Amino acid sequence: MEGVDYLAGERRKAGFDVDEMKIVWAGSRHAFQLSDRISKLVASDPAFSKDGRTTMPRKELFKNTLRKATYAWKRIIELRLTEEEATKLRVYVDEPAFTDLHWAMFIPAIKGSGSEEQQQKWLPLAYKMQIIGCYAQTELGHGSNVQGLETTATFDPQTDEFIIHSPTLTSSKWWPGGLGKIATHAVVYARLITEGKDHGVHGFIVQLRSLEDHKPLPGITVGDVGMKFGNGAYNTMDNGVLRFDHVRIPRDQMLMRVSQVTREGKYVQSNIPRQILYGTMVFVRQTIVSDASSALSRAVCIATRYSAVRRQFGSQDGGQETQVIDYKTQQSRLFPLLASAYAFRFVGEWLKWLYTDVTQKLQAGDFSTLPEVHACTAGLKSLTTSATADGIEECRKLCGGHGYLCSSGLPELFAVYVPACTYEGDNVVLLLQVARFLVKTVSQLGSGKQPVGTIAYMGRIEHLMQCRSNVQQAEDWLKPSAVLEAFEARAARMSISCARNVSKFANPEDGFAELSVDLVEAAVAHCQLIVVSKFIEKLQQDIPGKGVRQQLEALCSVYALFLLHKHQGDFLATGYITPKQASLANDQLRALYTQVRPNAIALVDAFNYTDHFLGSILGRYDGNVYPKLYEEAWKDPLNATVVPDGYHEYIRPLLKQQLRSARL
Amino acid sequence: MEGVDYLAGERRKAGFDVDEMKIVWAGSRHAFQLSDRISKLVASDPAFSKDGRTTMPRKELFKNTLRKATYAWKRIIELRLTEEEATKLRVYVDEPAFTDLHWAMFIPAIKGSGSEEQQQKWLPLAYKMQIIGCYAQTELGHGSNVQGLETTATFDPQTDEFIIHSPTLTSSKWWPGGLGKIATHAVVYARLITEGKDHGVHGFIVQLRSLEDHKPLPGITVGDVGMKFGNGAYNTMDNGVLRFDHVRIPRDQMLMRVSQVTREGKYVQSNIPRQILYGTMVFVRQTIVSDASSALSRAVCIATRYSAVRRQFGSQDGGQETQVIDYKTQQSRLFPLLASAYAFRFVGEWLKWLYTDVTQKLQAGDFSTLPEVHACTAGLKSLTTSATADGIEECRKLCGGHGYLCSSGLPELFAVYVPACTYEGDNVVLLLQVARFLVKTVSQLGSGKQPVGTIAYMGRIEHLMQCRSNVQQAEDWLKPSAVLEAFEARAARMSISCARNVSKFANPEDGFAELSVDLVEAAVAHCQLIVVSKFIEKLQQDIPGKGVRQQLEALCSVYALFLLHKHQGDFLATGYITPKQASLANDQLRALYTQVRPNAIALVDAFNYTDHFLGSILGRYDGNVYPKLYEEAWKDPLNATVVPDGYHEYIRPLLKQQLRSARL
Repeated sequence: MEGVDYLAGERRKAGFDVDEMKIVWAGSRHAFQLSDRISKLVASDPAFSKDGRTTMPRKELFKNTLRKATYAWKRIIELRLTEEEATKLRVYVDEPAFTDLHWAMFIPAIKGSGSEEQQQKWLPLAYKMQIIGCYAQTELGHGSNVQGLETTATFDPQTDEFIIHSPTLTSSKWWPGGLGKIATHAVVYARLITEGKDHGVHGFIVQLRSLEDHKPLPGITVGDVGMKFGNGAYNTMDNGVLRFDHVRIPRDQMLMRVSQVTREGKYVQSNIPRQILYGTMVFVRQTIVSDASSALSRAVCIATRYSAVRRQFGSQDGGQETQVIDYKTQQSRLFPLLASAYAFRFVGEWLKWLYTDVTQKLQAGDFSTLPEVHACTAGLKSLTTSATADGIEECRKLCGGHGYLCSSGLPELFAVYVPACTYEGDNVVLLLQVARFLVKTVSQLGSGKQPVGTIAYMGRIEHLMQCRSNVQQAEDWLKPSAVLEAFEARAARMSISCARNVSKFANPEDGFAELSVDLVEAAVAHCQLIVVSKFIEKLQQDIPGKGVRQQLEALCSVYALFLLHKHQGDFLATGYITPKQASLANDQLRALYTQVRPNAIALVDAFNYTDHFLGSILGRYDGNVYPKLYEEAWKDPLNATVVPDGYHEYIRPLLKQQLRSARL
Repeated sequence: MEGVDYLAGERRKAGFDVDEMKIVWAGSRHAFQLSDRISKLVASDPAFSKDGRTTMPRKELFKNTLRKATYAWKRIIELRLTEEEATKLRVYVDEPAFTDLHWAMFIPAIKGSGSEEQQQKWLPLAYKMQIIGCYAQTELGHGSNVQGLETTATFDPQTDEFIIHSPTLTSSKWWPGGLGKIATHAVVYARLITEGKDHGVHGFIVQLRSLEDHKPLPGITVGDVGMKFGNGAYNTMDNGVLRFDHVRIPRDQMLMRVSQVTREGKYVQSNIPRQILYGTMVFVRQTIVSDASSALSRAVCIATRYSAVRRQFGSQDGGQETQVIDYKTQQSRLFPLLASAYAFRFVGEWLKWLYTDVTQKLQAGDFSTLPEVHACTAGLKSLTTSATADGIEECRKLCGGHGYLCSSGLPELFAVYVPACTYEGDNVVLLLQVARFLVKTVSQLGSGKQPVGTIAYMGRIEHLMQCRSNVQQAEDWLKPSAVLEAFEARAARMSISCARNVSKFANPEDGFAELSVDLVEAAVAHCQLIVVSKFIEKLQQDIPGKGVRQQLEALCSVYALFLLHKHQGDFLATGYITPKQASLANDQLRALYTQVRPNAIALVDAFNYTDHFLGSILGRYDGNVYPKLYEEAWKDPLNATVVPDGYHEYIRPLLKQQLRSARL
């Protein structure tokens, strides 16, 4: 029945103040109110309807996205939204579009790498969307290895221009979002060649299309790279391919904040240090971690609500079956993901602080923490995006067969999310960078250089190499200190062990290559420690609201003990815990699931997602799943006719044994 | 360049006879020749082209599948293919269609559960496809718990008919493939009610559509359930929804092999025991395991070839970069999946033997091995399908960004495969069944009843509880006996531990529910042991061909040691190995990767897949990836025009700041 809340009983079970938890999740009362207002604005506007998105053919889908993106911009202007509000609006429209890259990559690239003059010239055009930009870095043959890009920008002193050129097929720009059909401009990364010398990869602003008729400018070949994974999903985006045939641009379109080419063609460095560019990278990674918690929490919200609706087995007397959320097997897969969503939220929040902190330090010319910040953001990007991609698919499986329907929202959520494991740094490549930092840190221990920030625990290496867990009963694992030391000891011991093994090789690079799998595992241990420790730090803050802190404490323990169980091999092999202690952790984890169970629905309600944003029948707030699934089925284009297209040509001849005359 | 084999150098590296390996993979020379001939027949026929499948709108896609399925049937008749050949042909057409369910579910259901008379009446019609059948078991509200189905079949002695009825919304049949738009008949599972008594779920043959105009018969509401995960993928199939409003069928359309309803409405059992039906289940599961090795090997073939083509990093002097397959991080993710594909192949082969064996036993009235066979097939279905689904996605990630393109073939392979984790028994529910069997076996130890088959190792429980690994150096882990004992000891100890903990509960069912997560882990340990032991058994057979046995030995060790490392927590916690021995296993695994590396391309060539079947530009036999990716991009519908649809309506007004007048 419409209007009935089928999950009301579940909501009454919660032992905490959901409204206060909403504020904790959002990060602040302001952030909550902003999200709440903007998400409802989007949800209530029929122009932003998601209907039919998974059945639209590509062209129709794409055109529909152009309409939505432009309409969103119109509303932003009409309502005079702030930048913060406008960003949120795009988030809640929830459809990848050319505007994403314009705002999140093109503009920041100019802000980060453009000179004052260049910013003054280009940014006003971009802010008004009089030009639409994209970010053209990756090539058909080159992704992770940016230094291997092949596109060239050769300075011609005769005309004071750069000649942008794609010398090979593999140098074709490939993947940039917004490039394929829409962007009028791009920041193009190319090898700067001047005075016959290759100065490596630099950024250049290049106009791609006429502002009058949108046709590609002479020398430019540009198009869409074709269909990508999933229904709807990233197919709303025109990821593009781009080739240059000796395209000329004025010299002042090289991004010149940290290095320049003079009128004579001399390559010179400005007095602004290169490291200043790292600020942008920290910002982008912080955004990705924050997006991970958003994507994972959506999937968890859907799976949790549906697990309370769905019943299966357990009826003895013809009565109602058991809610699947009551099964320990379901809880053991679902609740750690719920806990992960919160964990990633808080580590994302901390990364926002880190960004501010590092920005201030960079501006003050203090680059000392950069290696640590670089490793920590790389590792957290890798850890959270991998866990989120796997977690979304796990949530889909937790919804059984119905999770396979597009109307569950989960297939699209997965397909649209998984590229995060690859873009902005392949997750394994990033972990190797973390490992390199760990090995270097180990090598400097005892040199007097004290490790700081997320690697500070290495300063207590002697203790961490020797200590043993003093857990004696299951509840001891609820102590933050017990958990923290376990994760520190494990991470420290794995790093030390790797560093020792690498040092046995005559050439450390050979050792690094040969042992890279162990190194990746050590990096994961280090990153998991960061997430656990930031969750624990969060709990040391003032957290108002009845029962809110208790819920978060339970989730923090679930997150940590789930990881401890999953990776118990690490903890046992490094000798920090005994098999008995591992078993106690598992007992405590089981008890925590029982504790989380009555609060589960309220814990996902705290995300405050609208049904529009969730886009899932299984995850409906009111739990009215089955009638809506049934209704939705009839909307499929195949159901437009009772007898399907093709019956007369193919099925009737088959049934009537008249295949010889059939046109096949 | 066309015609050049870019992977020829890789192929020359192989140290074994690929042609002989092809026969090992296929299972026999006959099986190889059959697959080779039929796959080439399909690949060379333009009517079976896969072009455009991922961009077709649903109706067009579905119609195209009807054409292909009917054309395939026509060719089967024209070429007078045997049943074996016809089945292979459908496999290589590689597109889910209504015919799958007709042949794999509808016909076997009648053969398995129909009386002699019923088989004589219905099978000839089905064999000629004069009727098209599907298998209508699951309902909107009921999947795993078959006994909870709600559809009723009430006997009316007045008319000698059953009245088939859907009493609730949740009783709507939901998911059956072929049902939505095509099937004329269904085997419908419904609660048999006669003389006012509910006799539980039975099968009934019900005609759904007119054989004249294909319209649903009176009282029947039927349609498609709507879009499912992925581009193309299972959207070629009309998974359906079906409701009955008091539909009458003659009494003789109840499947009456093991139980009947008499003219008077009496429910009687025939003298054929119910257990005979288990044969079908074993057959279906064996097929699923075999399909798992097929799906996983396709993904592995694509990822392996592309990993040899793709180069990234590692160039010091502007020369070629390193092939990504040379990185240990890539090998450590890819080669265990390669080994898994072979492992699943061999365990699938063994299941074929088991099916024959159990069929003979059932016919002889020997049901003694049924519980073991049931547990073993349930467990292997769960293990292989979960590993394959995860493995396909891992292969996609191993292809970096380009794996996200539909033209890589991997998104569709994943989307079309994942339902295997849910259908024919949800994978976690199946593992719980295995666990129940393990606990029961433990409880019977010492009772004189000797465990047999895959559980025979439990007969040596005293030794397995006490023994310790005697591995002293890395190479010791290459001994099959060392590996086998490790997996046996781990599985036995986990089962015993679970059984003990369950027995501590006053009510064992409560213990089972509370400890279900541990029980699932014990079941996984048992199933992994089966796969490892069947691989080892395979190696004890006569294997001709230069170097073939050595390759398989290496793969067997990779599979076992990869699992040992992944689950080292189990092995350490149960005290069978020391941390040092775990570390030696890891060292040996790394050495094995180096050994597999030069043979990798040949090991995937041995699958003998055509480029048509693979459907992947990244996995092309000739390695000519980049030019073909580039060509393919331009075929996307979005590239039909240079200026995209929607430019004039949405983009131009945006750029020209004329949004007020735009129609949005």
